[in-house]
Amino acid sequence: MRLNNKTQLFRIITLLIIVTIIGCKEASTNEQGDEKVDKIVSANSDHPKLILTKAGVESIRKQLGNIPIFDNTLKAVQEEIDAEIALGIDTPIPKDYSGGYTHVRHKRNMIVLQKAGVLYQILNDEKYAKYVKDMLMQYEAMYKTLPVHPKTRSYARGKLFWQCLNDSNWLVYVSQAYDCIYNYLTEEERNKLETNLFKPFADFISVDNPQFYQRVHNHSTWGNAAVGMIGLVMNDEELIDRALYGIKGAEMDKTAKDDDGGFINKDGKAGFLANIEEPFSPDGYYNEGPYYQRYAMYPFLVFAEGLHNVKPELKIFEYKEGVLLKSINALLNLSDADGEFFPLNDGQKGMSYYNDALVTAVDISYHFGAQDPGLLSIAEKQNKVLLDDSGLAVALGIKNGKAKPFAKKSINLSDGPDGKQGGVGILRNEDIELVFKYAAQGSSHGHYDKLSYSLYENGEEIIQDYGLARFVNIEQKGGGNYLKENKTWAKQTIAHNTVTQNETSHYNGDFEIGSKHNPELNYFSTENESVQVVSAKEANAYPGTEMLRTMAIIKDEDLEKPYVLDIMKLVSNKANQYDFPYYFLGQVLNSNFEYKIPSTLKPLGDKNGYQHLYVEGSAKANKDNTKFSWLNKGKFYTLTAVTNTNDEILFTRIGANDPAFNLRREAAIMLRRKNTKNTLFVSTIEAHGSYSPVSESAVNSNSSIKELKVILDTDQYTAIEITNVKGNTKLFITINKNASKETKHTLKINDKDYDWSGSYYFK
Amino acid sequence: MRLNNKTQLFRIITLLIIVTIIGCKEASTNEQGDEKVDKIVSANSDHPKLILTKAGVESIRKQLGNIPIFDNTLKAVQEEIDAEIALGIDTPIPKDYSGGYTHVRHKRNMIVLQKAGVLYQILNDEKYAKYVKDMLMQYEAMYKTLPVHPKTRSYARGKLFWQCLNDSNWLVYVSQAYDCIYNYLTEEERNKLETNLFKPFADFISVDNPQFYQRVHNHSTWGNAAVGMIGLVMNDEELIDRALYGIKGAEMDKTAKDDDGGFINKDGKAGFLANIEEPFSPDGYYNEGPYYQRYAMYPFLVFAEGLHNVKPELKIFEYKEGVLLKSINALLNLSDADGEFFPLNDGQKGMSYYNDALVTAVDISYHFGAQDPGLLSIAEKQNKVLLDDSGLAVALGIKNGKAKPFAKKSINLSDGPDGKQGGVGILRNEDIELVFKYAAQGSSHGHYDKLSYSLYENGEEIIQDYGLARFVNIEQKGGGNYLKENKTWAKQTIAHNTVTQNETSHYNGDFEIGSKHNPELNYFSTENESVQVVSAKEANAYPGTEMLRTMAIIKDEDLEKPYVLDIMKLVSNKANQYDFPYYFLGQVLNSNFEYKIPSTLKPLGDKNGYQHLYVEGSAKANKDNTKFSWLNKGKFYTLTAVTNTNDEILFTRIGANDPAFNLRREAAIMLRRKNTKNTLFVSTIEAHGSYSPVSESAVNSNSSIKELKVILDTDQYTAIEITNVKGNTKLFITINKNASKETKHTLKINDKDYDWSGSYYFK
Repeated sequence: MRLNNKTQLFRIITLLIIVTIIGCKEASTNEQGDEKVDKIVSANSDHPKLILTKAGVESIRKQLGNIPIFDNTLKAVQEEIDAEIALGIDTPIPKDYSGGYTHVRHKRNMIVLQKAGVLYQILNDEKYAKYVKDMLMQYEAMYKTLPVHPKTRSYARGKLFWQCLNDSNWLVYVSQAYDCIYNYLTEEERNKLETNLFKPFADFISVDNPQFYQRVHNHSTWGNAAVGMIGLVMNDEELIDRALYGIKGAEMDKTAKDDDGGFINKDGKAGFLANIEEPFSPDGYYNEGPYYQRYAMYPFLVFAEGLHNVKPELKIFEYKEGVLLKSINALLNLSDADGEFFPLNDGQKGMSYYNDALVTAVDISYHFGAQDPGLLSIAEKQNKVLLDDSGLAVALGIKNGKAKPFAKKSINLSDGPDGKQGGVGILRNEDIELVFKYAAQGSSHGHYDKLSYSLYENGEEIIQDYGLARFVNIEQKGGGNYLKENKTWAKQTIAHNTVTQNETSHYNGDFEIGSKHNPELNYFSTENESVQVVSAKEANAYPGTEMLRTMAIIKDEDLEKPYVLDIMKLVSNKANQYDFPYYFLGQVLNSNFEYKIPSTLKPLGDKNGYQHLYVEGSAKANKDNTKFSWLNKGKFYTLTAVTNTNDEILFTRIGANDPAFNLRREAAIMLRRKNTKNTLFVSTIEAHGSYSPVSESAVNSNSSIKELKVILDTDQYTAIEITNVKGNTKLFITINKNASKETKHTLKINDKDYDWSGSYYFK
Repeated sequence: MRLNNKTQLFRIITLLIIVTIIGCKEASTNEQGDEKVDKIVSANSDHPKLILTKAGVESIRKQLGNIPIFDNTLKAVQEEIDAEIALGIDTPIPKDYSGGYTHVRHKRNMIVLQKAGVLYQILNDEKYAKYVKDMLMQYEAMYKTLPVHPKTRSYARGKLFWQCLNDSNWLVYVSQAYDCIYNYLTEEERNKLETNLFKPFADFISVDNPQFYQRVHNHSTWGNAAVGMIGLVMNDEELIDRALYGIKGAEMDKTAKDDDGGFINKDGKAGFLANIEEPFSPDGYYNEGPYYQRYAMYPFLVFAEGLHNVKPELKIFEYKEGVLLKSINALLNLSDADGEFFPLNDGQKGMSYYNDALVTAVDISYHFGAQDPGLLSIAEKQNKVLLDDSGLAVALGIKNGKAKPFAKKSINLSDGPDGKQGGVGILRNEDIELVFKYAAQGSSHGHYDKLSYSLYENGEEIIQDYGLARFVNIEQKGGGNYLKENKTWAKQTIAHNTVTQNETSHYNGDFEIGSKHNPELNYFSTENESVQVVSAKEANAYPGTEMLRTMAIIKDEDLEKPYVLDIMKLVSNKANQYDFPYYFLGQVLNSNFEYKIPSTLKPLGDKNGYQHLYVEGSAKANKDNTKFSWLNKGKFYTLTAVTNTNDEILFTRIGANDPAFNLRREAAIMLRRKNTKNTLFVSTIEAHGSYSPVSESAVNSNSSIKELKVILDTDQYTAIEITNVKGNTKLFITINKNASKETKHTLKINDKDYDWSGSYYFK
């Protein structure tokens, strides 16, 4: 009887569960479409549940062989892991910096473990589970007695690696592997791993290293994600809480700084949520810039995916008005035509949306976001997908022909947690892209380059931003870490396309001062496709001096390609020297001024980056307009600048005082204006024509701009007249203060009246 | 009766003609295949007959729409010419240098005329014929009173252009256009054009400018072809003779020189046949190098094609054992993996087999040669064909799936009319290509770089040859002509990867001395795929000093990629200073020696090219081995050199004394050995590993060569021991004199006996 009753109760409960599940499934389907089916099931305590889910694995297995990009990715991963398995397992005693063998091996192991775990789930082949188990057991055996890493350079040394950051990377990946083979292991095996490896590992990178963990910084994001993800797998609420909100009751030294000179924890904020809150602006711009956003992205998204699956009630993808998904869109927009990220602040050139972190970002954004078909075209270019539910969704989208081009347009991205600390404005017209930086300091990876810019044509640099001085992971160059030239050169103002006053950097190159201020947007206007404009002001880089820069990309039907108009207005309470460089790339063609070259090359100065510049030539500028042309990668470019005969022109080349050849020998042409209080630097940069070494024909190799003239410059307005070689003249008037779309303006210049509404006039 | 007889006779003759034609057709078909049918018919006086033939045009018309690459080329040409016709005709009064408007316009007109003529024939649309006629008549109207070109820089000024060379280019193209519309014109129109334009034009570039026409030089080849081609069209035997054999009875100043410093006519040879005879070696190597061969190729081949069609009895393609077609094979082999020509002597980098002249060369070589299916794969890459019989043959070959990869292997190309003036040896193994130059002076475009080399990995330069100092057709850079740095830098020995003795160039940089001598091959051995070797000797570059260089590409199974072994043996009758540079490209990684950088950069010397090199660093070399690594375009490279502690190491950079920024700022590392009579420079260059800025992983970034050791160096033998990091040692012994494949050698080194047959020992 009791048995019968029990049986009956069991039946009723089972039925109820089934009904509930079906109901939920339907609700979910109705709300968000088929692809989300799995998420209900995965919220239980079954494994896998973190990134892969039980239901997701089932879907994937069903579709296999019928989803080309997924199938190909799977095949490549299988080949890669089979080769690793054949090589055997090596978990060497840690001893090297980045680039050294033990570093590279442990880094490789984390990737291999994650992938092998996924293969076990998808292919249901125990050889992968056994491989993961065997390697984890070797780590367990080593880790329980492992001392802190012998290399001492880091402010937070790890155990497997020289810094906690890399240890955290490892745990982010390995927690996924553990989740995948969780059910393959016996309880005893799990206890062993959790007690001797995962729990102490999570504690070491958090409670034992609060200077690393307890802060708002991309390093900490990795730490938080690592602790949180292993917590989700182990079902350890304490670790999950520590991940989300930081170490309970940790007391931090508010004045301490890290290796890069950034404050460890000035305002006490910590944990994953604070790390979403602080560095992302409401537009999804990440305060350190795209290179570090790309790096930080993976833990943000993969932990968010885990939270979404295990703790859907947190609604992590809706946190801060969906900023995580917005940030992916921002990041993709911070890339050039080839998908390479603009090297704002510390950024290594060449990093692009082909990086695996962006495969994660694109797939997650597609799956958990609004299924933007533009993302599918990027996924096609990436030619691989995540081997999980989101990758499946992308693969199906592509297979079903849903992909459309990801159209990058002009975009203004605010900076700061509340979007009120300046930003980055990107102007785009045809193949020309201008990246204008008026952002805040950018944490410890920030450069002192207020109102600077870089310019691209179809993915090639015209006027370059130097990027960082580092060869990431190349051991021969300073262990693959930041080189001292990053501070002495790359971060300095003179290394950037902006104004340097009296040969000192913005904010005197002081991180604390820089972190207190930021430029302010004057206006951003892209309604008119032919005239894209951004204008911003900076009043604190040099106390007593105000810099207002207005940059436009203008498409004039008389000119072959859109050109850049650049108006830098300086108002100061004293006379200064202003240096205004253009870091062009390529070969000098000609100029409309005579220059002299020195017989020996000497550095331009002895500090603030000037010590790294050789002077290769010098000249007096022309009255009215100074012109200079160059050729780069088969394209012609011409700078036309409004100058006076007191202006000096310097040809410089990077590379002085560079005892280990760490810097690239690249050129600039620099305008120098001495002993001046208020002034304007006005110039245009044209891209024109082409040259082919195969046909040896030079097309449109001459500038189309005949004259550039300032016809008015007041507190309120600056007016520039641009006359082209066809004799047609255009007038650009920019509003220097209180610019708004609506305000009406009436202005008389040379007895002619101009009436308009908005932030600028152009006709 | 008489009428009847006449009719009957007529019938008999007609029958006889038909029988003869059929018989010839059959003979031709049997001998050479279908594609040659046309050539019989074209030998008559019908037009077109020069490049297009009546029969060819018929075949083409039949196949149209069914030969994709031909159809696409035709479509592109039609679009191009229709656009030109829409623009209207402009034949401006000549006034500019290269790159200026009138130059560019007349150059464009000649191409447009040629293409419009072809379109008329293929499409049978009179608008093209009319366009050609109208433009020719404008030229006729202008030419009859046209003075010599106003620009005075050339040793042989043209009329349409500043130099006769360009006038000749024009006539080579325009004679084809004239042939195409010959039958469209009335006899009166033809008389007008021939009397006022073509005949005086041909006379001007020949009898009026013998210093241009009457010599063996690529300029003259154009002149000869121009005169000959218009002669073939006009059926003017006197012009044809003048083209083939030069101006009858012309007396030349045997000591006169041209703009480039070359002798105008030292030995009295002239005419097209002499121009085939002299510059081409029996292997088809062109004495000025591939860049100029590419330029000269077009008139050689297009005139040859015309001769073949109109005067088949000349058997022009069999002349000098078929050297014209051989030379195409040689030229294709003188290109890197991307099809770019090695910049031997004066060569502009980037010129490649995508140039239109090579479309001509490849199609003609296929059609008139042995139908090599490898040529079809190059034609596929070129993605266009000639719009003539040869282009049709190629298009059909591709359509019929006959294309196979053009496999470039190691090849030795002799230089000199009889193949006895040195040569160029190209060693290839996997992705590594080494171009070893032991050729003769190379006419006026030669560089003073005996036994120099350049090194490539998969089309990217590892150790570069500078090429020429010129921006061809870019008016802003010296009118697009040779810059003075071509003489002061690019031609000098120190600009090359060979030895410079006592800071003077080979042959004292004297063209006359250089033209008297050439290096001699010691041996070239490529039977063993893993060990490709070239060795040559030069005894006259520095009187009293003998240079013997042996270079090998060795594939060692312990190393990832094939490496270069370089043994330069110097024997002198006095003590000298030897400079031995490596023009590497990319970023310095590390070295096993300490170097110092100067506070200011000074030139290394004051003449012979040294005045253009800044010294960026200096060091004392290591005892035993000096190592140096760099990174370029994502690949790692390491130089290992046998040195002693008296050797100096210099880091140099090009760019000193360059007042117009004409030179590229590129680096070298240089070994300097002072006060030494006899010596060896022995080194290896390894390509290894890779770096990706996307994955940021550095793979195999360290050298695999542990030690390099000279264990024997005698008059007869030099023996080098190479030990890799796995501890395995290989021995390379090279024969320094009287090397031959057959000779047996027995040698005892360090009490060990070595026995072998052949030019080198390797084990």
